[in-house]
Formats: sequence, C-alpha cells, structure tokens
Amino acid sequence: MTRNAAALRNDQAMLIVMKSQASADQVEHVLRAIRDHGLTPHPLPGATRTAIGITGNTGAIDPASFEALPGVMEAIRVTRPYKLASREMHPDDTVVSLPHTRFGPGTFTIVAGPCSVENEEMIFRTAEFLLSRGVRLMRAGAFKPRTSPYSFQGLEFEGLEILARVRHKTGIAVVTEVLDAAHVTAVEAAVDMLQVGARNMQNFSLLKRLARSSLPVLLKRGMSATLDEWLMAAEYLLADGNRQVVLCERGVRTFADHTRNTLDLSIIPPVRRYSHLPIIADPSHGTGMRDYVPAMALAALAAGADGIMLEVHPEPEKALSDGAQSLDFAGFDRVLESLRKIAEPLGRAIH
Amino acid sequence: MTRNAAALRNDQAMLIVMKSQASADQVEHVLRAIRDHGLTPHPLPGATRTAIGITGNTGAIDPASFEALPGVMEAIRVTRPYKLASREMHPDDTVVSLPHTRFGPGTFTIVAGPCSVENEEMIFRTAEFLLSRGVRLMRAGAFKPRTSPYSFQGLEFEGLEILARVRHKTGIAVVTEVLDAAHVTAVEAAVDMLQVGARNMQNFSLLKRLARSSLPVLLKRGMSATLDEWLMAAEYLLADGNRQVVLCERGVRTFADHTRNTLDLSIIPPVRRYSHLPIIADPSHGTGMRDYVPAMALAALAAGADGIMLEVHPEPEKALSDGAQSLDFAGFDRVLESLRKIAEPLGRAIH
Amino acid sequence: MTRNAAALRNDQAMLIVMKSQASADQVEHVLRAIRDHGLTPHPLPGATRTAIGITGNTGAIDPASFEALPGVMEAIRVTRPYKLASREMHPDDTVVSLPHTRFGPGTFTIVAGPCSVENEEMIFRTAEFLLSRGVRLMRAGAFKPRTSPYSFQGLEFEGLEILARVRHKTGIAVVTEVLDAAHVTAVEAAVDMLQVGARNMQNFSLLKRLARSSLPVLLKRGMSATLDEWLMAAEYLLADGNRQVVLCERGVRTFADHTRNTLDLSIIPPVRRYSHLPIIADPSHGTGMRDYVPAMALAALAAGADGIMLEVHPEPEKALSDGAQSLDFAGFDRVLESLRKIAEPLGRAIH
Amino acid sequence: MTRNAAALRNDQAMLIVMKSQASADQVEHVLRAIRDHGLTPHPLPGATRTAIGITGNTGAIDPASFEALPGVMEAIRVTRPYKLASREMHPDDTVVSLPHTRFGPGTFTIVAGPCSVENEEMIFRTAEFLLSRGVRLMRAGAFKPRTSPYSFQGLEFEGLEILARVRHKTGIAVVTEVLDAAHVTAVEAAVDMLQVGARNMQNFSLLKRLARSSLPVLLKRGMSATLDEWLMAAEYLLADGNRQVVLCERGVRTFADHTRNTLDLSIIPPVRRYSHLPIIADPSHGTGMRDYVPAMALAALAAGADGIMLEVHPEPEKALSDGAQSLDFAGFDRVLESLRKIAEPLGRAIH
Repeated sequence: MTRNAAALRNDQAMLIVMKSQASADQVEHVLRAIRDHGLTPHPLPGATRTAIGITGNTGAIDPASFEALPGVMEAIRVTRPYKLASREMHPDDTVVSLPHTRFGPGTFTIVAGPCSVENEEMIFRTAEFLLSRGVRLMRAGAFKPRTSPYSFQGLEFEGLEILARVRHKTGIAVVTEVLDAAHVTAVEAAVDMLQVGARNMQNFSLLKRLARSSLPVLLKRGMSATLDEWLMAAEYLLADGNRQVVLCERGVRTFADHTRNTLDLSIIPPVRRYSHLPIIADPSHGTGMRDYVPAMALAALAAGADGIMLEVHPEPEKALSDGAQSLDFAGFDRVLESLRKIAEPLGRAIH
Repeated sequence: MTRNAAALRNDQAMLIVMKSQASADQVEHVLRAIRDHGLTPHPLPGATRTAIGITGNTGAIDPASFEALPGVMEAIRVTRPYKLASREMHPDDTVVSLPHTRFGPGTFTIVAGPCSVENEEMIFRTAEFLLSRGVRLMRAGAFKPRTSPYSFQGLEFEGLEILARVRHKTGIAVVTEVLDAAHVTAVEAAVDMLQVGARNMQNFSLLKRLARSSLPVLLKRGMSATLDEWLMAAEYLLADGNRQVVLCERGVRTFADHTRNTLDLSIIPPVRRYSHLPIIADPSHGTGMRDYVPAMALAALAAGADGIMLEVHPEPEKALSDGAQSLDFAGFDRVLESLRKIAEPLGRAIH
Repeated sequence: MTRNAAALRNDQAMLIVMKSQASADQVEHVLRAIRDHGLTPHPLPGATRTAIGITGNTGAIDPASFEALPGVMEAIRVTRPYKLASREMHPDDTVVSLPHTRFGPGTFTIVAGPCSVENEEMIFRTAEFLLSRGVRLMRAGAFKPRTSPYSFQGLEFEGLEILARVRHKTGIAVVTEVLDAAHVTAVEAAVDMLQVGARNMQNFSLLKRLARSSLPVLLKRGMSATLDEWLMAAEYLLADGNRQVVLCERGVRTFADHTRNTLDLSIIPPVRRYSHLPIIADPSHGTGMRDYVPAMALAALAAGADGIMLEVHPEPEKALSDGAQSLDFAGFDRVLESLRKIAEPLGRAIH
Repeated sequence: MTRNAAALRNDQAMLIVMKSQASADQVEHVLRAIRDHGLTPHPLPGATRTAIGITGNTGAIDPASFEALPGVMEAIRVTRPYKLASREMHPDDTVVSLPHTRFGPGTFTIVAGPCSVENEEMIFRTAEFLLSRGVRLMRAGAFKPRTSPYSFQGLEFEGLEILARVRHKTGIAVVTEVLDAAHVTAVEAAVDMLQVGARNMQNFSLLKRLARSSLPVLLKRGMSATLDEWLMAAEYLLADGNRQVVLCERGVRTFADHTRNTLDLSIIPPVRRYSHLPIIADPSHGTGMRDYVPAMALAALAAGADGIMLEVHPEPEKALSDGAQSLDFAGFDRVLESLRKIAEPLGRAIH
C-alpha cells in the first residue's frame, strides 16, 4: 500500500484489496466497475498486491458487490454508513423532550407501566401509582405483537381511547407501540410518544411514516440488529425530519438460554461514542424474568443508560401478557429505592 | 381474527417443577394461578419435590409466567404451540399451486429473477430467459426493504405495473415482496404470489392481511427466528384462512462472518418432521456471494428442499441492489445443469 | 397428562411426550429403552397422547437419545444436571479465600494486572501500584493462548518465576492461567489461584487435574457456553474435591460486532439463583476496548457481581498483547473512584 | 515454535481511519505508535479526515489496539492473518493420505464408526461392516470429552488397545480424538489419524504437540469459531511442520434450537476459496438427530465437502454416548446408497 493523498478525501470511503495474483486486466475491470457506480477509484499499487481506495457516495453500495469481481480479495467499508445519527455530524447529545419529562444528559428517565392495556381501571391505578412515585411517562400497549395468533392481541383502538383518557385525567405522558403505518394517525392523537418494537425495527414503511410525525419515537433494537443497522433505522427517522429519537436496548437473540433474551448493556458505551441519541434499556424484556429485573435495572444505570423501561402491573400474576417479567407495585418501589441509592453518586437525577 | 374451535382442541400440556424446598403454601399458590388462567392443574407429589402437570389451552401461556411464582424451579412447555401448521394436524404434504407450476412432493421448483425491478427491458429479458430454461416463476422486487434510507428503495407502484405487463405478455408467474398491509390489494392485482421478507416475518399486521388474500404466500424465515416462531408466523396465515403457504429459508444471523448470513439447511428435515408446508431455500441471500451460490443450491436440493430461489440478473455488475449475489445468465445455466445432474437420481422433477 | 405420584420422585427427572398417533407398540418400545438405561419409566396416559416420566439417575442421559425413537414427539430434561454446583444442594453462598482477600457476600473483589508477564520490572511496578490502591490480587499471564501462532505466546516458565518473586517480595496474591495439565504443578508452586481460560472451559483433562489442586480456581465462561455447561465445568472441579471455585463472565460470542465479545452481565442473577459459587466479570475481555471498560465495570458491580477482573498495564500502548483493552494507572484510578461511589450505597466493601 | 521466514514475507496491511475532528497531534501520536510496533505508517491525508495505511508484519497486531488511541475512528485489517493455510500461499489443493484412503480432489471420503469404543466386540463388528461397504477409515473415541463428570468418559488407554488390535487384525485405518498433549504419544502408537475435537480447537498446547506428529490431523471447527480462527488453528499445525491437516465442520452454536448444533455447510465454499486444505462435514454431531443425518450427509456432498464423518453403531439404542445421532447398519446402508446416486454425477468417487 502506498500513499495517496486523494484516496480518502471523502467522509465515506471503501477500500478494495486485490489478490496478490490479480492480473492488470482484473484491476482494470474493478476500476471500471467503480466508475460505473458513479464513484472515483484511487489505485494504490503495492509491492505484491494492489489496493484501490474508493471515494464518492459509497453509503448505498454493498462492499460485497465488489468482492464478487474476479481478482478481488476483500472489499471493506471504511466509514460508518449513518450520517445524521452520527456523533461526528452532531457532537452534542440530543435531548428528547416530552410533557413533564425528557431524555438526555444528567437525567435517568423511568418509563414504566403494564405490557398491555387490559382495562381502564388497571391503567388508572398504574398511572396514579407511577405519578405518586415521580414517574411521568407510562408505557402500555394497545396493539400487541404476539408470536401466536391465539394469544391476546391487545384492546387496539379501545385501548388507545383508554390511554387518551388516563393521559388527560392524570396528566401522565404515555408511550405506546405502533404496529402499522395505517394506525399512526390514530395513535398520535392518543399519546405523547410512539414506540417501534423490536420486530418492526426494520419495518421501513412504518419508519417512513413515523419520520413525518411530530411526536418523538422510541426505537427498540431489533432482536438481531447490529449497532450499524440500529442507527440506520434511526437514520430513516432523522432523514425525513423527525429528530426526536430515543434508542432502547431490549435484549438480543443469542445461544444463551438463561434469560429470555441477552440484554446487551455493552452497546451503551458504543452508542455514546458513535451517536448523539439518548439510549435507554428495558430489563423486563431483556431478561423476561421479574427476579432478574432489579439487578439489570441497576446495571443499566451504572452502564450509562439515559433511562430504563420497566414493566409494572398491579397484579402481575393475572396479566394477560408478559406477567412473568412484570414487577408489582412493591417490587417497583424496591427497584426505585435501589436506583436512588446510586443515581446521586453517579450525578444523575431520576425522572 | 377468527379462530377455529377445532384447531385448539388437541392435547396441549405444560409441566411445572417446584423447588425441593417449596412449601405447601407455595404449591397451593401455583395451583390457584393455574386455575386463574382457566387451566387444570394435576399435582404430582414426589419424595423430594412436587411437579404439576397442566392441561387445557396452554398455547397462549408463556411458561415463564409460572417460573416467576415463589417456589417454582422450572416451567416447561411439553407440546409445540402451532396447530394448523403442524404435521400432526395435517399428515399429508401440502401442495401449493401456481399458474404453470407448484410447490410440493416430487418437484424441485426454481424461483429466479433479479433482486429488484429496475426497468421494463431487464425484466422482459430475464422473463424470456427463464421461460426458455423452463423456469415458470420469476421473483423481482418492486418494494425493497433497504438498511439505508439513502439506498434505492425500488420502483414501487411503477415496478408493479412492469411486473403485471411482463406477466401478461410472457405468461411467466411472478412473486414479489409486500412491505405494508396497505399495499396488498395493489400487489395482488399485479402478481401470482406474495412474499413476506425476513424483516417482516413477525409484522403481524401484514400477516393478518395476507391471511385474507386468495394468493399463495412465500414466507421467509426471520433473521433470528426459531422453528417454532416461523411456524407460528405461518399459523397466522393459516388460522385466518390462507392455506397456501411456502416457507423459505434464507439464512440466519450468527457470529459467523464468512457469508452474509448463515444458510441453515439443517432446518429442512425438522420442518418436514413437524410441518406439512413446502420449504425452499434461498442461497443467494443466504450466502450473499455469487461464487458460493452454486454449491449451496445443490446442497439445498440434496437436503430435501422443495425448491430454491435464485437471484439472476442480465448484468449483475450493474444491479441497483444485491449485485454481488446475483448470477448472470451463463452462471444460472451452470447451476441449472448441476441441479439436473442430481435431481433425477434423487427422484425430483425440476420445475 | 394424568396424575402419577411416583413420576417425579427423584431429584432428577425426564419427561417423554409421545406423538398423538403413537402406537401401543411404540410406547412399549420406549418403556423398554428406558429400562435398558437402568431407569424407571412411569407412563402417564392422556386423552389424546401418552407422556412418560422417567426417574433414576438421568443426569448422564441425553434427552435426544429418546427423541430418535419411533413415536416420540419430545424428550425434556426436567431438572438441571449439576448437583454440587447447585444452590439446592448448598443453599449458602460459597466464600473462596485467598491470602489477604476473598470472594463472597458483602465484598467486591478487584483482580487487576497486565494481560501477560512481559518482564520483571513491569510486574513489580504494577504490583506496587495495585497494593497502593488496596488491590490484593494481581492477574498476569505467563502462558498465553493466542489465536495466531505468530503472536507472542508468553514468557512461560520464566514468567512463572517472575510472578513467584513479585509475590514473595510484595505480598500480593497472584492468579495466572494454566493451559495444560502438565504445567499445573509448576504453576501451583508459583501462584495463589489458577485460572482456566474461556478456550479451556471444557478442557476436561485440565479440569480433572485442577480438581486435585489445593489452590482455588478461577473458571472463565467459554465463548459459547450455556449456564448449564458452565456449571457442569465447575462440577468437574467440585466432584473431584476442589470446592474453591470462582466463576468469571468474560463475554460470549454473538452476532454483535460493536464490542469484541458480548459481556453477558445478565447471567449474574441466574448464577445466584441456581448456584452458590461466587461470580465476577471481566469487562476488559468482555468489551475489548479500554474506553468501554469503566462503564461496564460499574455495571458489573451494580448487577451483583462479586468482583471484577481488569487489565491494567503501566504503558498499554506498548503492551505485547491486548493493549487496546488495558487501562493505564490513571485510568484504573478513575474506575476505582467510580466503583467506590456506588459500592457503599450498595452495601459492598471493595477489596 | 519455529517460524518460517518466508511465510510472513507477504503483503499484510492494516488501515486506520482518524476521526474528522482528530488533531495533528493525535495523528502524530498514532504514527509513533505504529512505528513502536516496528511497522511502517503511510499517512493518507484527506479533505475532512486522515487515513493511515500500515505495512509490515501486522499479522500479530490486534486492530483494536489502535482503535483505543485518541482520535482514531476505526482500524481495519486488510489482509487475512493466516499464511501457510491460505490458498494464496499454496494454490493447489492439499491431498492428505492415509493407509488405503485419502482426502482430496475427486474423492468423497467416508469416516464412520461409533461415538466411543465400548468394547472389543462392537468395534470389530463395526470395522468388518464398514470394510464390507468399502469404508476404510473408522472413527471411535477412546477418550471422550463429556459435559458432565458423571457421564461415561471413554475406555481411555484400554480403548486405544482395542483400536490397535482391530486395526491390525482387519486393516481398517482408525482416527480417534486426543484430549491432552500428554496422551499423544500413546495415541499415535495406536491409530492412523489424530482428531482434535471442537472443544479443543484452541487448545494450543495440544496443537503444538500435534504439529510435531507424523500422523495427519483431523481438526474440528470450534463451536463458535470463525473461519479465520479455524484456519489459524490449522496454521499452528502447519507452522510447526505438520502439513497433513483435514478440516471438519461439525455444527456451530447459534440461537437455533431445532438441531443440536447448526451445521454450517456454507463454510465449505469459503474454505475452498481461502484455503487449500480438505474439508469434511459431520452431520451426526451437526444435527444430533439420526433422522436428520441422511439429508445433511447428501447436502454435504452436494455442497462440495471432501467427505463426511458419520456415527454408526451396531445397536444405537444401547450406545453409551450419542446414541440419538448414531445410525444403525441398515441406516448407514441407506445413506450410502443415496450418496452413491449423486456422487457419480458430481464426478466424485466414494472412498
């Protein structure tokens, strides 16, 4: 590899390494292919093999498309594909504001509530309980994505009405999941924040619609999403105009079978490094087991999360979904007490 | 969602194992919780611990909901959660029929075509090439799910029109991906089979809409879907009335980095064991590399797949998406020739 | 499934579920197979299918061996396979004692030091630095498992001599990795605690030798080890007489590429639930990036770990191995200061 | 370890991309760090950021060691770390020869036999059966790596004696697993080929000892080994002089739970691309289920494997280990018949 001042002039770059036996014709063929993509090749002849830097808008090109050309050993993307989601483009932390609360530096924001809206009474009880503990953002699902068609699918539009009433009567802010672009307008009218679930992280129809919403979006990480894919899903929202995005780690799928998912708290520091968006963690879905939630909630705070999402239910044993991972009110109080112990030493105000 | 009373009549069971130190009160508490779910508990007291069998409609219950109760060691689902997708309910192989072709026993059905509809000319060229080779079902995407918002997103409705024209003029059958329930009616009017992509395998809004379609559905396996989750996604289609479902393995996400995904051909024999639905494999997406496609196409046939889906493009190097994994026409001919060599000895007719 | 008092009398149990179409002959065949293994079958005839409970010493039997019999739908292990490592057998937390320090309830034990012994001077500097900070257990590798045969493999026996001298002169306790049963005697003579690395978690020759050591063992989790496999590796040590075992989570292999491994802190609560052995975490190997270590060290403490293992090097940029994940002395001081902030509120004394 | 001066001469490269805000001092610091590793930096200043090419022997350097330096965005290895195992160094396919058989181009070599040596009679019966079918290489374990200390651990040295007798009396060649460097000499005296199991793929003590053996080595892929790590394990053998290495894919660990492991046949084409070593597949361990073995054995042949390893047992239901995945003699005959059907059309001779 030799010096080439021009090779990486652009913020986006790709590098192709030719095989050591690659012929001059094969190199020429690759150069042409690069130009055919509207990009500029920069050959870097070396002692035993040639490398080729590529500049131009390489963001949309799959490196593998060059790996299939004769004589090519490797094609490597040099820069990350996201722009608006990147800290390089936006060095300061983003603050996402909601009525009475916010996500961002210095705070640790708790989002809590039942998995699903089961009836008006339990939602009221939960909202009042949460408000009495200083929690100002409630979660509760009206539309539920369920693995089985025979499972409870949520109260749907009736659930939205319940949420709207509780929100108006108690003043609590509400976040709820949207499953379908066709429902967004109705959901926007009922709540304060829109949630994209893990199964829909790459539902691009839904993302494009939410990008045009005036409400902030809580974007859960897909079950097998890489950091790049997750930030690219956020990029869909940012690119079409919605800058109010909060990321939520909720466990990924691995071989491990001791928890329902593997809560990947170690993505928090890299998200901070590469992006400016707030990130929270969901230890309820992350572990799938109520007994493991307190320890992982504390760990999320210690790892630097901007908040947590917790499932809380007045009577978890009777919950229509995800009861096993829901805390009851007393359990929530114990978690809150633990969080308070370490939030202050860590310089964080619990919201 | 309508439900079939008969569909859930069969014998489902769960087993709860108490801790050896569990108290009589804890056992009693679990028995009550089971009854509260409308299920019947069957205590199995032992010398050092008690187990509790559960009968009734346990399909919608998460075993973890019992694991969170005091004194419980383990809760285990004994039977599989799917019904209509199961071979127990439907011992004979399902045959899915399309104009001029079908998926089912004795045949090996090739679905081929470009990743996306780029223009009318390339779609015509591909359709005519495929028909000349005896391939009667073409794939081509009008709506493309792309990781980046800056990548080509497909010609969308214009692409559907192109597909409809090619289909009418040449007689080739067409399968294309649907990304949004709101598009289904338009897509149904243009093609012969509807594809659910890996990212949408658990887009339940979309599945519920497709369940009411009269067209067959090609259901790709999600990137991190278990066999049970995949068959449950099929169950969404079957439960609401669409029995024409073909499964497609397209590679899953693992730690392995030598291919774009890990093509899991070893799911083919278990799908045969547990389900009656046809299953095909997609070595193009599975490997992400044109050079690896021929070997894996042959392997899919040998492993017992009912067919394969191959990306073929008149000029792969100029493809707007997934060029790296697309075969050119000469490459397709070589794969076809290899497949022919072993199809007959294996008792399979290539369609 | 029907009641059967005897079915689960033993602490170990397995359950076989027959297919609904299984014939009486097939059931009889399974019953015989169970008896041939020296186990006792307990048929549980149900309305539409038969289940068979199995008692006896099923610990050594692979459930899959029954799944291959005709008519069998599923075979499920009902109880966990480990005994001596289980909390059921040993309800109180184990305390592992070392000269001047220990692992167990109420303490948070820091193990720190360089990846490898590079020379005597750097080991002395590190030991003195650690002692000045109250850290009494140093890690440093004499034998290094390296992916590449061309990488530095450690000073080997010369490294052991350095460790022995530093230990005697400074009084610091030392833990070092053993790669080969043949080296155990030499390593025992030089240090205070023996480490089994992730790559050797199932090197049973090594485990059997260490089971006969009088020194405590630090057992790292294998890169793709389940909780059961890990505790079974501990069981190898316990079963042959070494009860002084500390578990260490060091990151597992998943699809995620933002850290070198995926540090699975969520295994800490299940280890507490199912076992009595102390567990620590290694955020240096877990993340592979110095910048991510402080956050994950705090998270490990908050998640309930009994300690952490940190890579510290006087000059990380010159380290012969793993420099990227090593803290320098100033970086270590910053981590220690953060840990102190939350250790006291969490009721833990830093050792 | 001896090293071959020529082996490392070729063109290795790494590329460092600085952050766009990186200061001149930070760039200078990175240049110094590169020189401190004995490597040559090549700065590539661009309009908005600087990249730095690195040449020299980068094989032993972890790219992450540069990522931790201030101002660095990414560090990327451009070339693969293996040398002697690479096809670039050795363009022709390696042929590994054994008494009466071989692994290499044009042949499809079957290795078959029981999981473990249980007694002399069953080994003789199996050897005679295999020879009668033209199979000339038998597998059988004397030392068994078992997850549980309470499981049958193999007949050990007595098992070796049985293997030696059967080998001499029948003329069949034998491959058996070695678990400990200390056993190698004894095992070498008894058999024709030495197997490294998945759990020991990175047992470098064992690899270094086997590198000095005159017998060929069958190197199984580790449960979570990447292609690079596997070839680097082979490199340990090659670098110290043993060029007779056969790779064996035996399934990797993923989230998938429908088979015991996920048999990754899609590694076969990349192994062919990047290496010259023969590769076989083990569908018995790969699937863990006898019923799935025939389909995956055929798929391995179709995918281009140089052979397969099959578990065969006179009475699988009575096997002391892995009975669920063992074929009986009739089952083996059915697999062999299927393989014969497609081997000839694929231009392969079954050995």
